[in-house]
Amino acid sequence: MFGTKKIDFGVCYYPEHWPKELWEDDLDRMILTGIEVIRIAEFAWSKFELEENIFDFTFFDEFLELVSKKDIKVIFCTPTATPPVWLTERYPEVLAVEYDGSVHRHGMRRQYNYNSPIYLEKTKIIVEKLVEHYGHNKSIIGWQIDNELNCVTNEFYAEADHVEFRKFVKNKYQNLVKLNEAWGTNVWNQTYTDWEEVFLPRYAPRKTTNPHLKLDATRFISESVLKFTSIQSEIIRKGVDKDIFVTTNGLFKNIDYNKMVQDSLDFITYDNYPTFGLLDKSNKLKDRRWSHHLSKTRAISSHFGIMEQQAGPGGWVNHHKAPTPKPGQLRLWTFQAIAHGADFISYFRWRTAPYGTEIYWYGILGHDNKDNRRLLEVKKTINDVKKIENLNNSDYQSEIAILHDYDNEWDSAYDVWTGPLVENSERALFETLQQNHIPFNYVNFSNTLSINNLKKYKVIFVPHLTIVKNSMVKLLKRYTEEGGKLVIGARSGYKDENGKCPMLTMPIKMTDLFGIEINDFTFLQDFDSSRQASFLDKKISMSDFNDILTPISSSCKTLATYTEDYYAGEAAITVNSYGKGQAIYCGSSFNQSNISEILTYFNITATFEKMIKLPNVCEIAVRENEYEQYIFVLNYSGDPQKIQLIEEFVDTKNNKKISGTIELVGYDVLVLKKLK
Amino acid sequence: MFGTKKIDFGVCYYPEHWPKELWEDDLDRMILTGIEVIRIAEFAWSKFELEENIFDFTFFDEFLELVSKKDIKVIFCTPTATPPVWLTERYPEVLAVEYDGSVHRHGMRRQYNYNSPIYLEKTKIIVEKLVEHYGHNKSIIGWQIDNELNCVTNEFYAEADHVEFRKFVKNKYQNLVKLNEAWGTNVWNQTYTDWEEVFLPRYAPRKTTNPHLKLDATRFISESVLKFTSIQSEIIRKGVDKDIFVTTNGLFKNIDYNKMVQDSLDFITYDNYPTFGLLDKSNKLKDRRWSHHLSKTRAISSHFGIMEQQAGPGGWVNHHKAPTPKPGQLRLWTFQAIAHGADFISYFRWRTAPYGTEIYWYGILGHDNKDNRRLLEVKKTINDVKKIENLNNSDYQSEIAILHDYDNEWDSAYDVWTGPLVENSERALFETLQQNHIPFNYVNFSNTLSINNLKKYKVIFVPHLTIVKNSMVKLLKRYTEEGGKLVIGARSGYKDENGKCPMLTMPIKMTDLFGIEINDFTFLQDFDSSRQASFLDKKISMSDFNDILTPISSSCKTLATYTEDYYAGEAAITVNSYGKGQAIYCGSSFNQSNISEILTYFNITATFEKMIKLPNVCEIAVRENEYEQYIFVLNYSGDPQKIQLIEEFVDTKNNKKISGTIELVGYDVLVLKKLK
Amino acid sequence: MFGTKKIDFGVCYYPEHWPKELWEDDLDRMILTGIEVIRIAEFAWSKFELEENIFDFTFFDEFLELVSKKDIKVIFCTPTATPPVWLTERYPEVLAVEYDGSVHRHGMRRQYNYNSPIYLEKTKIIVEKLVEHYGHNKSIIGWQIDNELNCVTNEFYAEADHVEFRKFVKNKYQNLVKLNEAWGTNVWNQTYTDWEEVFLPRYAPRKTTNPHLKLDATRFISESVLKFTSIQSEIIRKGVDKDIFVTTNGLFKNIDYNKMVQDSLDFITYDNYPTFGLLDKSNKLKDRRWSHHLSKTRAISSHFGIMEQQAGPGGWVNHHKAPTPKPGQLRLWTFQAIAHGADFISYFRWRTAPYGTEIYWYGILGHDNKDNRRLLEVKKTINDVKKIENLNNSDYQSEIAILHDYDNEWDSAYDVWTGPLVENSERALFETLQQNHIPFNYVNFSNTLSINNLKKYKVIFVPHLTIVKNSMVKLLKRYTEEGGKLVIGARSGYKDENGKCPMLTMPIKMTDLFGIEINDFTFLQDFDSSRQASFLDKKISMSDFNDILTPISSSCKTLATYTEDYYAGEAAITVNSYGKGQAIYCGSSFNQSNISEILTYFNITATFEKMIKLPNVCEIAVRENEYEQYIFVLNYSGDPQKIQLIEEFVDTKNNKKISGTIELVGYDVLVLKKLK
Repeated sequence: MFGTKKIDFGVCYYPEHWPKELWEDDLDRMILTGIEVIRIAEFAWSKFELEENIFDFTFFDEFLELVSKKDIKVIFCTPTATPPVWLTERYPEVLAVEYDGSVHRHGMRRQYNYNSPIYLEKTKIIVEKLVEHYGHNKSIIGWQIDNELNCVTNEFYAEADHVEFRKFVKNKYQNLVKLNEAWGTNVWNQTYTDWEEVFLPRYAPRKTTNPHLKLDATRFISESVLKFTSIQSEIIRKGVDKDIFVTTNGLFKNIDYNKMVQDSLDFITYDNYPTFGLLDKSNKLKDRRWSHHLSKTRAISSHFGIMEQQAGPGGWVNHHKAPTPKPGQLRLWTFQAIAHGADFISYFRWRTAPYGTEIYWYGILGHDNKDNRRLLEVKKTINDVKKIENLNNSDYQSEIAILHDYDNEWDSAYDVWTGPLVENSERALFETLQQNHIPFNYVNFSNTLSINNLKKYKVIFVPHLTIVKNSMVKLLKRYTEEGGKLVIGARSGYKDENGKCPMLTMPIKMTDLFGIEINDFTFLQDFDSSRQASFLDKKISMSDFNDILTPISSSCKTLATYTEDYYAGEAAITVNSYGKGQAIYCGSSFNQSNISEILTYFNITATFEKMIKLPNVCEIAVRENEYEQYIFVLNYSGDPQKIQLIEEFVDTKNNKKISGTIELVGYDVLVLKKLK
Repeated sequence: MFGTKKIDFGVCYYPEHWPKELWEDDLDRMILTGIEVIRIAEFAWSKFELEENIFDFTFFDEFLELVSKKDIKVIFCTPTATPPVWLTERYPEVLAVEYDGSVHRHGMRRQYNYNSPIYLEKTKIIVEKLVEHYGHNKSIIGWQIDNELNCVTNEFYAEADHVEFRKFVKNKYQNLVKLNEAWGTNVWNQTYTDWEEVFLPRYAPRKTTNPHLKLDATRFISESVLKFTSIQSEIIRKGVDKDIFVTTNGLFKNIDYNKMVQDSLDFITYDNYPTFGLLDKSNKLKDRRWSHHLSKTRAISSHFGIMEQQAGPGGWVNHHKAPTPKPGQLRLWTFQAIAHGADFISYFRWRTAPYGTEIYWYGILGHDNKDNRRLLEVKKTINDVKKIENLNNSDYQSEIAILHDYDNEWDSAYDVWTGPLVENSERALFETLQQNHIPFNYVNFSNTLSINNLKKYKVIFVPHLTIVKNSMVKLLKRYTEEGGKLVIGARSGYKDENGKCPMLTMPIKMTDLFGIEINDFTFLQDFDSSRQASFLDKKISMSDFNDILTPISSSCKTLATYTEDYYAGEAAITVNSYGKGQAIYCGSSFNQSNISEILTYFNITATFEKMIKLPNVCEIAVRENEYEQYIFVLNYSGDPQKIQLIEEFVDTKNNKKISGTIELVGYDVLVLKKLK
Repeated sequence: MFGTKKIDFGVCYYPEHWPKELWEDDLDRMILTGIEVIRIAEFAWSKFELEENIFDFTFFDEFLELVSKKDIKVIFCTPTATPPVWLTERYPEVLAVEYDGSVHRHGMRRQYNYNSPIYLEKTKIIVEKLVEHYGHNKSIIGWQIDNELNCVTNEFYAEADHVEFRKFVKNKYQNLVKLNEAWGTNVWNQTYTDWEEVFLPRYAPRKTTNPHLKLDATRFISESVLKFTSIQSEIIRKGVDKDIFVTTNGLFKNIDYNKMVQDSLDFITYDNYPTFGLLDKSNKLKDRRWSHHLSKTRAISSHFGIMEQQAGPGGWVNHHKAPTPKPGQLRLWTFQAIAHGADFISYFRWRTAPYGTEIYWYGILGHDNKDNRRLLEVKKTINDVKKIENLNNSDYQSEIAILHDYDNEWDSAYDVWTGPLVENSERALFETLQQNHIPFNYVNFSNTLSINNLKKYKVIFVPHLTIVKNSMVKLLKRYTEEGGKLVIGARSGYKDENGKCPMLTMPIKMTDLFGIEINDFTFLQDFDSSRQASFLDKKISMSDFNDILTPISSSCKTLATYTEDYYAGEAAITVNSYGKGQAIYCGSSFNQSNISEILTYFNITATFEKMIKLPNVCEIAVRENEYEQYIFVLNYSGDPQKIQLIEEFVDTKNNKKISGTIELVGYDVLVLKKLK
């Protein structure tokens, strides 16, 4: 990622947590382990500006002086995630405020809001000072802006946020007539008569607010984060050499990361903690579910970094109790990230914090600083990965895409009708595709998304596009016309860009694309959330919501009909021939049974089945460059699994040829190479 | 209801939500559907007073001008439910404040408090202006005050509420000695020494407060609502003709509706949404449970209106996900309301809101404005109802009553001992009586309730009369003396009107009426909430709480004895001969098993069993006037049901004679006529 | 307790709740019942100072004048638990404030904070006035300070608390360098640069705060309570005779009661309500669990009082619904308290409150004031107890101790890793020891705890000593060296006194004591919270957390090995020979199976099995003085139980000899005497 052809490895390090006497030993042991990069300083504002406007760089100068003597590089962070206490006590208006008015106080992280003029000023000063001082430091290869933007909280209600939101909508709508029109303020007597009456959502029972205002408020949050990021990015880019990269680490809610990367970053990095998956009872795929999140990351930067890769058990003193990774799992999870497109892995963290909230968020080393099995496993993992030439920058392979749109995500987050559909469908799509060995990409809709980005996919799933934008409809129609297979889920097409419902037949603007109308529908109750349908001759489940479809075009064919309730016999899933392609409308949320039948209908089987056969509990992922394919087989179970290699490959572990049926022990990983 | 002998039909309409071009088409289609009345303007303050004191009636003038040309009448609303944003921003003291201090802000509904002098002034002005302008409009047949008073929130803690509460108790108690005595402030050192120390309940852990103050606080809330209503009612009555009615729509908590009707209204209307019953997992009778709520409405106005009758699926963007009514259900629910005494049905709403919080609270028409099956069903329903002559103003028939008392309701709402008893007993009484085809009325205790109102009932159930008032005891004794059958539930008789416990033997003031004393009792635990008893020779369940009864009168007979725990063998249910009547004390909450045995003991069987036999899942309800009986049979199930007509009736559908066994299809309704 | 050799009996009485005409009858009936002492005035501030600085003692003078004529003594309370409303309205800064800023208002109890200078001043004045007036009253034998300190709330965040906390840490750390060091403020940029920046924890999501600050904050709460208590105690002691005792009633959280007794009290009293145990579904031992709480009380004062002993059903109007004690249970619970070391029993309360929040918190008498079965049972109980000579001041006998440390308790309360371990282990130890008839003492660690306090125990369990203090380690080592058997649970030894994690091998400072190192471990997930191990040849469960033990000393022997997961075969429980003793490290929380095997390994069987054999559902407890042993057998079940007396005893009921197998009816108690 950083100019090499191999995957790079790093670790998060906090010189300020340790006696200086430990520094050199730490760096030397890192190098022995294979670590090439350290990330530093993201919570260290006070080490540079302990009192307001009194700057002092001696602490990190001393540390970086030592680093410069070692074969190790640095990712340097701006420290804006945790303002010093003198700042928040002197200027409390910089603090983050919740919907209910609670003010975040010193002692946690991210206690600031993005719109306070004072905080923006203080941010500029500290970033300028740091860039001025460290901009040309030879060890530093890149900069991280802030840390985990929108983690902890992703909604902001400080006075400064209200003021800036007012400017945002003033700029967007120009006058109150247009704002009143856009937000439908005729309902419930909400008409605004003065800009000063406009606020971000404020308290009302059940957090009820005008939904169109709410959508704009979420757009405003994203814009606020992007503005904050770009202020820092501009300062950094001005003060550093051209080959120095700028990034930040995610992923968190209410941010248009694609726009952020476009505006301010070289690429995104992800903080990757698969044990969260182990703790979630409702998540059947456990740590393997993180392949979903890595796919979401890949939709932002096709090659990305892992800024924090889990290195031990996890927990805060007051929250979260995660088990110790079993032997093999740290390695497995590292390969999982790489298989999905990560070109840089930085473990969190070198050694466990000796105090503070995160004493149970274990690093590679424990409090006792002794060599341990996790250190050995990281070393072995790095060694294994480094054997694979040219992996860096090779592309993740998939025939299937899931379309994602930020407007729809943000609108559905507040919408109890569409919210659960989206969540359930995305989960079902991921689980079904994973278990059938069908790799997929998320594709995020944006103004730069082109037909070429879509055409490479055999099938595109679009779960629940309630908001319909002309540019998107145009793209989807063209994709289908040109031979694509489009599959859309229930409740698609009834809102405009403001989240309002125009007086049009559903699915609005797409009745021709799908060849249907929707004239009746029903929510299914929480305790009875599925109806059966007959798909050709198979029984499938139509979950959560049932759109009752009326085919209106001769090119439209009913694939499945409901078999229950008053709408038994009505169309449940239809397919329309549209140009050279086909457009399926699925009248419910996606679930394993209806996805499977749709895939079968389109003849989609395991993508690499001609090369490899593997059991359900293993994942296959393939990265490819001009010359080679790298095939990753990941065994998430603790038991040995039989893998059938139909073709002959090179095993990257020993560079030997390999074929036939082999056994992969529990948590093990196989990386095969195939020349093209 | 409105001067005709037939049931009237209306719809809620929002001219301000639609382009003016749609108005005429909407009105014409309404008339084709059978709609005779529209309700308008309840959230339209800004359409009359967009800026403070600048009034403008042109918008509604234009609409009403169009209406005047059509055969359609208008219920006009005062728009005080949603103050304009200029009002709440300029005078934030008018806003509703919750117990925890949260202030309701612009964007939802009912964000005001009833006691703010400014809000009262602004209310008077807008109502006066509207009455002045529209008071003699020929299309307007009645006025609705505000909308759903006490919906959203039914407790208020703004500064103005505290101030007014202080006046309320000052007026009630005159001096602090009496207030301290009434509230028992000796306990926990609560003695007040200055009026300024008196507040509505304020924050304490678990919302703990003096329970006698709490009871007065609830009485004060009801008084506040009544005062607010009567201010508006007086203005309207002064400015309109005598035949114009005044109403409001309910039902919500903490309001003495009987007093409200007496003071300010011609009758009450109810907002009727039976799908709430479908969504409630714990509610076995689903939509049929709404017969309970209609009975509660009937206890306020024996003939009432439905101001909002459900017309489609329901939901807000951020809350509530209700299914689409199945074919037949809209009609069923309309007939259910009429069977219970509704003489006017106004559907909510003509067409679904295109924006705002209620985009999923479907009207008859959907967003697309196309004719749909719901429109056809409404049309058919109206047609069916209109066939029935003279139904309007006929009376609901029942032999059984349940006595309800606002003081007891409000006291038990804060009392964890009696609260669950009341809730469980009312539910069990409703379900048992419904399923045994025994129609009943609620009778609300008030100062105008007379012995004649009670004497018409064979049996009166009184669930858990913890507060005992002399006037009520007198009435119950007289009812029993004169031959009535009285049945009271556990924990009756131990509090005075302040909710305090006098030094008297339980059931206080009623030991002679029931011929018993209660010297021991026990709460049953949540996880073991019933004990068995033997009622004559049958096993019954004694649920939630067990009073252990000691007969003290020779006229008292033990009907059931406990068979478990240390009080096995003690009396559980007793009956006392009192005058010509009988008084039963049931030592637990009411449940299906003890209610059934009590009914059997009193020889109460299905009220109309000599005329009709019908299965459990169907309801029978009878309305009657001088000349005729109308028998409603309602099939709540989706399956056909066999109904056995023992006598000969006229089927109102076709005016033909009908008898013998007939089949009623799913969700269907049979309305029979019988001459007296 | 109060100078007699017998157990004393009292009752809580509220002269201010009743008409004066009732007083004499009440006192006379108390005396007939056997009551010797009444506790009064704890909520009666307004009876002495109805307006600020206007004192008036006539009300209680009149009552005490009457008391002086009766054979009844008085415990007089300071009334600071409920300040008058004039005080809290005039000086709202005295009010208690919650973490979220909610202010406790007049109407509940304990609405003040301990650090408000005004409240301290007002407290001094009222206590001085009361002591001045009643200090030498002949009826008064002792004083209760306040009432239930830290009940209702045990965390305080008023401005005065922040200010005083700042002083507390300033005094503790002297300068900010040391404070920053102690709290590890390097993490998350928390470095303090000015004392004014230091606060008690303030709002942050999930109440996240610096855990070392949090520990100091809890210490500060305890210190605040102790200071408040000692201010009152000093005033009382100055103004009363030497033989007058001073106490307060507990037990509540965040108080070092051992220090409190040392500083300010003669002994502690406990408020004892075993029905809380009946209501707790998760508590298998129900009311018997209160033996646990009585043991905790005994660790504070080896002989203690019960200031409030449950006398009836319990409940507040708005919270808590407890059943009526069954016949025999009031007596059983009284004997349970005495068996565990209570030398004084004061029932709560004489007669049930007629108004206020506690109308369902029943006293001996009900609202009706009639003689009832509870009164008869109390009378019989007192009579039974009074037959037992010399019981007062005899000592509870046990061979086993559980070590408790306030610092560890307070640290683990905020720590989600250790908190559940402590809770589960303490519950398992109590249940296992109880059901195996092995009485135990809690021993609270303090600076005055000596080796002699420990040496009398065969085995000491130490559940989860995460914080390790040198003085404690020294004591535990000496105990073991001298022949003791020490058993410690998982996660012991990794924090210093600030709750920080030093760079040392676990269990820090105790690797030699246990002969092991801990180099790996894992939290078990909530839904899979146990792993199996093999203890010698038996299967046991290793619950909640698994430390993986590495024996490092030749004197260390592995007792149990894990049989599951990746650490199968590793040591789970080890025993180390240390001096003349043995030190067991148990790598998980304690549970019935591992405790049982450890007891068997140490040959610990039922302590009194040579004297008595009794079934599981009965408890045995023994009190002993120089000459005699009193053996209590308590039957918590409602069924008769067979007790086998192996030796011959004297039955205190009739002073007759008794031996062989006897039957104890449900809820009955046997108290045997044995001469030594």
